[in-house]
Amino acid sequence: KRSRELGIKIGVLSPGTMNAITDVAGVKVGQVTLSEGADVRTGVTAILPHDGNLFQQKVMAAMYIGNGFGKLAGYSQVEELGTLESPIVLTNTLSVPTAADAIIDWTLTQKGNENVRSVNSVVGETNDGYLNDIRGRHVRKEHVLNALAQAVSGQVAEGNVGAGTGTVCFNWKGGIGTSSRKLPKNLGGYTVGVLVQTNFGGVLKVNGVPVGEEMGKYAFKESLDKSSDGSCMMVVATDAPLDARNLKRLAKRVFMGMAQTGGIASNGSGDYVIAFSTANRVLHETSESTFSASYLHNDYVSPLFLAAMESTEEAIINSLLMARTSEGTQGHKVEELPEDKLLEIMRKYGRLKQ
Amino acid sequence: KRSRELGIKIGVLSPGTMNAITDVAGVKVGQVTLSEGADVRTGVTAILPHDGNLFQQKVMAAMYIGNGFGKLAGYSQVEELGTLESPIVLTNTLSVPTAADAIIDWTLTQKGNENVRSVNSVVGETNDGYLNDIRGRHVRKEHVLNALAQAVSGQVAEGNVGAGTGTVCFNWKGGIGTSSRKLPKNLGGYTVGVLVQTNFGGVLKVNGVPVGEEMGKYAFKESLDKSSDGSCMMVVATDAPLDARNLKRLAKRVFMGMAQTGGIASNGSGDYVIAFSTANRVLHETSESTFSASYLHNDYVSPLFLAAMESTEEAIINSLLMARTSEGTQGHKVEELPEDKLLEIMRKYGRLKQ
Amino acid sequence: KRSRELGIKIGVLSPGTMNAITDVAGVKVGQVTLSEGADVRTGVTAILPHDGNLFQQKVMAAMYIGNGFGKLAGYSQVEELGTLESPIVLTNTLSVPTAADAIIDWTLTQKGNENVRSVNSVVGETNDGYLNDIRGRHVRKEHVLNALAQAVSGQVAEGNVGAGTGTVCFNWKGGIGTSSRKLPKNLGGYTVGVLVQTNFGGVLKVNGVPVGEEMGKYAFKESLDKSSDGSCMMVVATDAPLDARNLKRLAKRVFMGMAQTGGIASNGSGDYVIAFSTANRVLHETSESTFSASYLHNDYVSPLFLAAMESTEEAIINSLLMARTSEGTQGHKVEELPEDKLLEIMRKYGRLKQ
Amino acid sequence: KRSRELGIKIGVLSPGTMNAITDVAGVKVGQVTLSEGADVRTGVTAILPHDGNLFQQKVMAAMYIGNGFGKLAGYSQVEELGTLESPIVLTNTLSVPTAADAIIDWTLTQKGNENVRSVNSVVGETNDGYLNDIRGRHVRKEHVLNALAQAVSGQVAEGNVGAGTGTVCFNWKGGIGTSSRKLPKNLGGYTVGVLVQTNFGGVLKVNGVPVGEEMGKYAFKESLDKSSDGSCMMVVATDAPLDARNLKRLAKRVFMGMAQTGGIASNGSGDYVIAFSTANRVLHETSESTFSASYLHNDYVSPLFLAAMESTEEAIINSLLMARTSEGTQGHKVEELPEDKLLEIMRKYGRLKQ
Repeated sequence: KRSRELGIKIGVLSPGTMNAITDVAGVKVGQVTLSEGADVRTGVTAILPHDGNLFQQKVMAAMYIGNGFGKLAGYSQVEELGTLESPIVLTNTLSVPTAADAIIDWTLTQKGNENVRSVNSVVGETNDGYLNDIRGRHVRKEHVLNALAQAVSGQVAEGNVGAGTGTVCFNWKGGIGTSSRKLPKNLGGYTVGVLVQTNFGGVLKVNGVPVGEEMGKYAFKESLDKSSDGSCMMVVATDAPLDARNLKRLAKRVFMGMAQTGGIASNGSGDYVIAFSTANRVLHETSESTFSASYLHNDYVSPLFLAAMESTEEAIINSLLMARTSEGTQGHKVEELPEDKLLEIMRKYGRLKQ
Repeated sequence: KRSRELGIKIGVLSPGTMNAITDVAGVKVGQVTLSEGADVRTGVTAILPHDGNLFQQKVMAAMYIGNGFGKLAGYSQVEELGTLESPIVLTNTLSVPTAADAIIDWTLTQKGNENVRSVNSVVGETNDGYLNDIRGRHVRKEHVLNALAQAVSGQVAEGNVGAGTGTVCFNWKGGIGTSSRKLPKNLGGYTVGVLVQTNFGGVLKVNGVPVGEEMGKYAFKESLDKSSDGSCMMVVATDAPLDARNLKRLAKRVFMGMAQTGGIASNGSGDYVIAFSTANRVLHETSESTFSASYLHNDYVSPLFLAAMESTEEAIINSLLMARTSEGTQGHKVEELPEDKLLEIMRKYGRLKQ
Repeated sequence: KRSRELGIKIGVLSPGTMNAITDVAGVKVGQVTLSEGADVRTGVTAILPHDGNLFQQKVMAAMYIGNGFGKLAGYSQVEELGTLESPIVLTNTLSVPTAADAIIDWTLTQKGNENVRSVNSVVGETNDGYLNDIRGRHVRKEHVLNALAQAVSGQVAEGNVGAGTGTVCFNWKGGIGTSSRKLPKNLGGYTVGVLVQTNFGGVLKVNGVPVGEEMGKYAFKESLDKSSDGSCMMVVATDAPLDARNLKRLAKRVFMGMAQTGGIASNGSGDYVIAFSTANRVLHETSESTFSASYLHNDYVSPLFLAAMESTEEAIINSLLMARTSEGTQGHKVEELPEDKLLEIMRKYGRLKQ
Repeated sequence: KRSRELGIKIGVLSPGTMNAITDVAGVKVGQVTLSEGADVRTGVTAILPHDGNLFQQKVMAAMYIGNGFGKLAGYSQVEELGTLESPIVLTNTLSVPTAADAIIDWTLTQKGNENVRSVNSVVGETNDGYLNDIRGRHVRKEHVLNALAQAVSGQVAEGNVGAGTGTVCFNWKGGIGTSSRKLPKNLGGYTVGVLVQTNFGGVLKVNGVPVGEEMGKYAFKESLDKSSDGSCMMVVATDAPLDARNLKRLAKRVFMGMAQTGGIASNGSGDYVIAFSTANRVLHETSESTFSASYLHNDYVSPLFLAAMESTEEAIINSLLMARTSEGTQGHKVEELPEDKLLEIMRKYGRLKQ
């Protein structure tokens, strides 16, 4: 069950209808899960900012690097131009090139892109090598293209699915998680949605409750283990009219949301945030030298910051709650965060609503 | 009373002897409080990395900008050269030039600095203009020089003192706070100490407990108020042998610690971290073209990250707990976080140790 | 004489009417020169983006740090918010606090700013300590306020004037220089203007001609001297509608223009660029949460990049050509770049038009 | 013929023995050229920092992004950790994923890397789509592996070779170019070597001579064409003991060297610099938490900056001089910079030695 279904209500703002990144109108998610035999526990999660030709109608975007031990593709162009021209694909560490290549295929073959000779594929990853035979590079182009083809709005599968199939978070089974916030009218009425691929560690807090300590599982408990390494890929979407500068600021608050779960962005963690806004589109071909756009004034962005922090915290907790115990390569097994025990702890700390 | 004295025990690591930035050997703190008449509520807090000539024996340093709405002096040179050559002085927003000028005086007049013609003063600030007649610029050079002269190791005064005299945090009286962590031997045995000047907002959590919500005071509760604006200046010291690159990473974790208290780094907040290591000194005058230094390997820095997060969270909470209700200019009054009510809430949420 | 008056024609684009930063409509420059007795050789150069209340009507802005060994004030806020709310003041290294303080005075006392409690003073500097008794800090607030009060559009004095009174460039007397480019209609028709304060070194090239080598004066000719240290402060203005992201890119091209003169951005050089656009104003007080503006599309910025490079190169050469031999503190003397010899070299290398 | 063979002597410092990046001891270069039929004009250039297991014995490294319109792989991890753990491979824009994947193959299959589950492939690119059927993605993994296998020290082929097979520079045929500088003893005696893949534009200057103007070919001559778009990938190696911070500074001076040729880093250009030092190795597996190393003091890096600028300028000119007229896809043809005409112009401007 998801966080709110269990009575764990994170933050002071309200979620959107689906409590998912897809609450931002137009955003679609597609996932392909590869769970085969004893060794393959990986997959692909794709996020599309809108329905149209993404290359021809770019969205404004920015990235924030929390800790750069990772293989994210596409960083510099998004930063330089302030736009995203591809879907965002998440997968495992060693399959980033495959996914980047598949995005090129996908883009080149779209109607209207016959003359495109340059594509900035944006691909994020976490390392699922504990459960998954990552050296086998089992993700193939068709998996990525399938994930893109299957992308839909509406509900988003969470837990051991897509790029979260083989991930580990706070020493428990992690995975894909999502959440959103819809600001009240007087704060702008905008929606912020977050999707995460969780594979990191630290000292787990669930809505502020010291679950890691209570369960006796946390970073450096006994020694300088590397259990807190891993990575967290985070994607934040909004319909608020933010330019690249303010999207980068929004992305940073997503990283702050990760901090609220007790993540420490350890040395070996690749913690990245990709932010985009669906409000303004930047045309690839323009005959006009200037374009007019309406942007949110700096003074009005702070509620979006809070929305991003809360959505991220809840998305990460959802990724844990929706994941299931999994066995994988080399006989490795990762337990799910035990729901009963968790609820007991939450009750002990007075954080279970109802 | 400080956090731990009240039974609020933040984090899994243990504090140093003083639970203060001064637990890092050699670090000294000096403070001058200006609280005069109805209007003046400001001051100066100075941090000295070591006892010697700071200009001639620089320490390795880095800065991280969480949210740059602030007037921090000295950023670019620290970033470029990786060294700090002045004390760190904190004061109010409009007194940054005065403090920077005083650091120049202080440096030029020191023995051995007769030929110094360039000084990179590092000055941080928060805006105490709600309680303090900030436009009056009541901080004078001598106040800064006094703070520097009075700097001592050992205990550090917290709350409405020095640069924290007039600050407001989460809508309560904020101020100066400090805390530290000493890593166990098997994690390196290093000390990390943090000092904060708190003047920011968001949705207060004390050790994960939703105190802001329980007290009915948090950002955007009714409307898009600017109560979360302000600033948070954070200084982190360590005796671990980190170079500038890893110090910058450490600084970022301090910002993550701020996030754990519910700070949102709102648009109008100047959230900066200054990090330095006392382990290696960089001589201003060198006849040798190379220098040998011992540094911590990347793989061993993660426990320091956790230590920085915990120290920061606790330092911020200390700044609130040690502050006292204050009236200031224009009849403005800011209440202290009520201890009784706080303890009651902490008890309700099962977070009071004893 | 200025570069073009001597027949040295830099670049392929044409200058504006004044061939100065003031060709960007509305931009004003004011300078105060302090040349007193044997020891004082310093001053102040102030640049105002427009005539109105700069704090209430901010301009979009960005900064680029070429080499951060310097004391620039105001960096982080411009970067975070994308706006400039003060004039830009240039002076000597140890007078930055004085200038920053003066800008606060100037801002607080303006009509309409009665409630302003936060001012982000932007002050750049170079170190004139070879000719000037810099430790004496002879620049006082009134000098800064006078420079601001005297600011005018139209012609800009160059050479040993204002903040360039005591500077040294490529081992010759440097100073203030300016230049501009006006793009032809088919490239947008915009104006780009640059003003520099030159105090740096390397291997001087004048319009590509190896003047440094020919004159036998260049960095490291004999040994690892520090003659290439110093600093170069560069300000670029444009009427093209650029947002902060594209202004930062423009600023970087100014730094590239510096490279074309043979500057190497040595370790001890503080090479900074401040860029602003006069096209859009950002109101300090807004009741609307969003604002509409017209911006130049990324695809149309490249001619501005070339304009910035050319203007910078010519501004630096102008600063040398307009400077005069100067004696200062401790009997130090710096020769001007000898015009006759220069012209002879330019002729030898076929670079003298007429 | 190379620049110096023609009597074009760039800069004041002397080249190393080969006047190539391979003058830095241990550095190897391998290239595979794909020139098939009418349509395929592309290839691979690989640079190996040393002979050993690059993953297990990383070199210190940094990157500088001049203009980020490009698809460089591997940026964030190099920046975060300060190390390079793979060879550097250059190829065309749409083949970056293929090359990144090949580097993973290459790394995983090396002796000693049996347990490696994470590889940060560093791949740069420029867009050769004018001469090359880039949409055909003709570079295959084996081409990359061959380039790596064939890497040798000593002379480096230049012009239409490897990743430079199909590139265009200043509207002439570009390609691969290289150059180096060996500092005299009194400046440290270190070697700096640069290799470039040139595919960019602007207003060409050869050793300061306005060749672009004289030949009547330069950016925006007639209109806002995109001829200056493209990209320039630059790699700089040194045996000076620089850490990541100073390597980043060195990388920036390489970009400055590009500026000296008249490159403008136009909007559509992907101008990146990758810098590494062979002086210190960072072991992947360490039982020691700290490591001792000798580093160059900040005060001694400036001559390396000049060396990097000069090497880059000369490497770019070499890439032009060594390239040959080429016809490719869609009947496109790009002329080589005509040597006779060039020499005539150089003579006219007094820049031909002998």
